[in-house]
Amino acid sequence: MALRKRLGHRQLLSASQCSSWRQMRGITYRIPQQFAEDMASTSLVLVREARRFVQECFSRVGMSMEKQRCITDLLLAADYRGVHGSGINHLDMYLSDIQNGYVDIKAEPKLIHNTLTTAHVDGNRAMGVFVANYCMDLAVEKARQTGIGFVVAKQSHHIGMAAWYAFRAVAKGFIGLVMSNAAPMMMQPGCRSSSLGANCLAFGATGNFSHLMLDMSTTVRDIGAIEWAFMNQEQIPRGWASDVNGMPTTFPNLALSAQQLYPIGGNKGFSLAAMIDVLCGVMSGANYATRIPRWCAPCQGRSPNLGLVMLVLDPCFFVPNFKERLDDFNRRIRNSCPRDEANPVKVPGDLEKQHMDYVDDLGALPYSNLLLAKCKLIANMLCVKPMQLAFTSCERHSSCVR
Amino acid sequence: MALRKRLGHRQLLSASQCSSWRQMRGITYRIPQQFAEDMASTSLVLVREARRFVQECFSRVGMSMEKQRCITDLLLAADYRGVHGSGINHLDMYLSDIQNGYVDIKAEPKLIHNTLTTAHVDGNRAMGVFVANYCMDLAVEKARQTGIGFVVAKQSHHIGMAAWYAFRAVAKGFIGLVMSNAAPMMMQPGCRSSSLGANCLAFGATGNFSHLMLDMSTTVRDIGAIEWAFMNQEQIPRGWASDVNGMPTTFPNLALSAQQLYPIGGNKGFSLAAMIDVLCGVMSGANYATRIPRWCAPCQGRSPNLGLVMLVLDPCFFVPNFKERLDDFNRRIRNSCPRDEANPVKVPGDLEKQHMDYVDDLGALPYSNLLLAKCKLIANMLCVKPMQLAFTSCERHSSCVR
Repeated sequence: MALRKRLGHRQLLSASQCSSWRQMRGITYRIPQQFAEDMASTSLVLVREARRFVQECFSRVGMSMEKQRCITDLLLAADYRGVHGSGINHLDMYLSDIQNGYVDIKAEPKLIHNTLTTAHVDGNRAMGVFVANYCMDLAVEKARQTGIGFVVAKQSHHIGMAAWYAFRAVAKGFIGLVMSNAAPMMMQPGCRSSSLGANCLAFGATGNFSHLMLDMSTTVRDIGAIEWAFMNQEQIPRGWASDVNGMPTTFPNLALSAQQLYPIGGNKGFSLAAMIDVLCGVMSGANYATRIPRWCAPCQGRSPNLGLVMLVLDPCFFVPNFKERLDDFNRRIRNSCPRDEANPVKVPGDLEKQHMDYVDDLGALPYSNLLLAKCKLIANMLCVKPMQLAFTSCERHSSCVR
Repeated sequence: MALRKRLGHRQLLSASQCSSWRQMRGITYRIPQQFAEDMASTSLVLVREARRFVQECFSRVGMSMEKQRCITDLLLAADYRGVHGSGINHLDMYLSDIQNGYVDIKAEPKLIHNTLTTAHVDGNRAMGVFVANYCMDLAVEKARQTGIGFVVAKQSHHIGMAAWYAFRAVAKGFIGLVMSNAAPMMMQPGCRSSSLGANCLAFGATGNFSHLMLDMSTTVRDIGAIEWAFMNQEQIPRGWASDVNGMPTTFPNLALSAQQLYPIGGNKGFSLAAMIDVLCGVMSGANYATRIPRWCAPCQGRSPNLGLVMLVLDPCFFVPNFKERLDDFNRRIRNSCPRDEANPVKVPGDLEKQHMDYVDDLGALPYSNLLLAKCKLIANMLCVKPMQLAFTSCERHSSCVR
C-alpha cells in the first residue's frame, strides 16, 4: 500500500502545507542523486520516525515546536523528492550553524521597505527557511492584489530546496520564481579559484492537470554529489570540478578540498550565477561573490548574510486560459520523439515523480547507511534517540511487501 | 585613430541611443563567433556605408525612415559587439519575412492591459525590434515610478540581440532583464526532435565604473555558429547539435538539416528554456514550443507570433549604494586567480569589449567575404547599390594604418 494512502501527507507535512505538498506530485524537475543505486547500502526509515528524530535534534538546540515542524517539513520533502543533497543530509550543518551562533533561531524576519508590489526584507539572521517562507508569502499576497509581487531579502541563511518556496506560489495558482546566492564554490572557466556560489534558481507554474517545476543550481553538479562519490570511494566525471590548481579532476577528495565546481555551459552558466548574485546579493544589501564566507569553513566566524529574491506572478492578469495553455505546453514537450522508443521522453520533473512513487511503494524513506551513520553521530552528540530503521534494507523490505 | 574618435557614435546610432551605446563599452558578455579568425577572408566596410546599405534595403521594402534607422542601429550594434549572428547576417531573413507578410512594417504595438507596474502588449505583428523597444521603454517608465516594471508582449517577431534592450534600461541606471522565445531548435537530451527554441536571456546592470551584461541563448551554440562552420567547410564539435536521428554529429550540413541543438548543461539548460517559454509564450498569449513555426521553413505560411518579457528594476529602491556594490562585485570576479598568469581572468563581456576595441582600431566593421557575397545577392535582388569595401582585407588595412 502506498505511503501516501497509509499515512497521509499530514505525517510528512503540516496541515497548512498539504496543498503545496500535493502540488509536488506534478511535473517538477531536479536531477536527484543516484541515492538508491546500491540497494544493499540503503535502509528504510518511516516518515514519522524521521520526523521525530529531526524535530528532537532541533528541539535540543532550543528551537520552538512551530519552527521545528517548519524546517522538518522542508528537509523531509527534499528527501521524498529525491533531492537528498537538500534533505536530512543538511541537518549537521544547520545544527552546527545554530550552535556557532551564525543563525539566530529566535529571530523573525522584518520589513525594511514595503510597497504594493515590492518589499525589502531583513532576514535578521533567522534560518533561511523562515526568511524564505515569509518572503514568498509576502510576494504571493502582493501578486494576488496587483498581479506581481517582488520581494528581496538580506541577512538570510541557506534556504535548502528552492522548489519548496516556488510550490507555495504554485499551490495558489501563481507562477513562482525563487533565487538565492551561496558561498563561492563555482569557478569561472580558465580560473583556479572560486568567485561565485552555485547560486540556485527554482521556477514553478501549474496547469489544470500538470505542473512545471525546475529547481537547479548553476553548477554541473552540486557539492553533495561529490561528497556522495567520496563516501562511496568512486571517481567523479571530469567535467564536474577542478583541483586547487584549476585542473579538472576525477578524484572527489581533491575536488572537495578545492571546492571549485564547473558552471553549466561554461561561461553561460557562470554569467547566470552572476545574474542571480547581482539580484540576491548586490541589490539586496546581502553579501555576494567572495564576500560570502565559505559555509564549511565554518562561516569564518561570521554570519553568511545571504540574499534571496522571490518573484510571483498571477498569469491570469495576462491570459485567462493560462492553465490550459500550460497543460498543452507540457503535452508538446512530452510528445517529442524519444531516441529510444523503449525509453519515453522525460518531462522536467519526471525523475522526482519517479522518486516519490518509489518512496510510496517502499512505504518509507530510503536513506543511505552512510547518511544514517552520520545521523547516529548527531544523535549521540545531542543525546537524542537515534533514528530507528523500519527495515534493515530495501531488499528485505521488497520481499516483505511484494 | 579609433573609429569612435573619428566618426563619433552618432554615425552608428541615432542621437537618442548614444547613451545606451556608450553603456556598451562597459562589461558585457556574449561569446562572439570566431568571425575574424581568418583575416584573409574578412573585408572592411565603413560604418556609414554599412548603414547606407542596410537602410536602402529596408527602404526598398517600404519601411519608413525612422524605422529603418531603428533596425539598422540594432544590426550594426550587434556587428560592432561581435555578435555577428544577430547582425547584418539577419538582414535576408528579416527582408524575407517582410516580403512574405509574416511581419507588418507599418504596424505599431498597442497596449492590451496596463497597470502601474505591469503591462500586456499586443505587438500587432510589428518587427521585433519595435515591439521590444516599446516594451522596454514602458517597463523603464514603470520602474521609474514604482521601482519595478514588468511588461509582457505577444504577436512579436525575432528581436535580435537581446542585450540591446537591456542596455536601454541600464542607460537609465536600472537593471534590465529581457527574455524572448523562438522557433523550436533545441532538443531535450534523449530525444530526436526539437521541442523548444534556443530561447534567449539578457541581463544588464551598471555600476559607477563598470557594467555587467549577459546575453545568451540556452543552447551550447546558436544556429549561426553552425552555418558559419558549414560555409567554411569545417566540422563542428560533438556537443553542439545532433542529426535527424538524435545522434550527436560533427557535420554541419547534417546539423543544419536537423535543426536540433543541444541545450547548455543538458536538462538544466532545457528547463531554463522551458521557463523562458512559459513566461514569454504561454503567459503572454503568444505561440510557444512546437506551436511556433520554424523560421527558415519559411514560417509555414503564418506569422511566428513570438512572445517577450521585460523586467526592469530600480536597484536604488533596495540599496542606495548599488553602483558601488556592483563595481565591487565586478572587481571581485576580476580578482580571481587565472590558471595561466599570462591569460588574465576574463570578466563577462570582455570578449565583446575586445571586439569593439578591434573595430575601433580597424576604423571599420570587419565582415566575412561570405557574408558580403550574401549581401551582394540581396543588393542585386532589391536593386540596391552593393556595400562598398573600405579596404580589400584586414591585412591590407593593417599595413596602411599601423
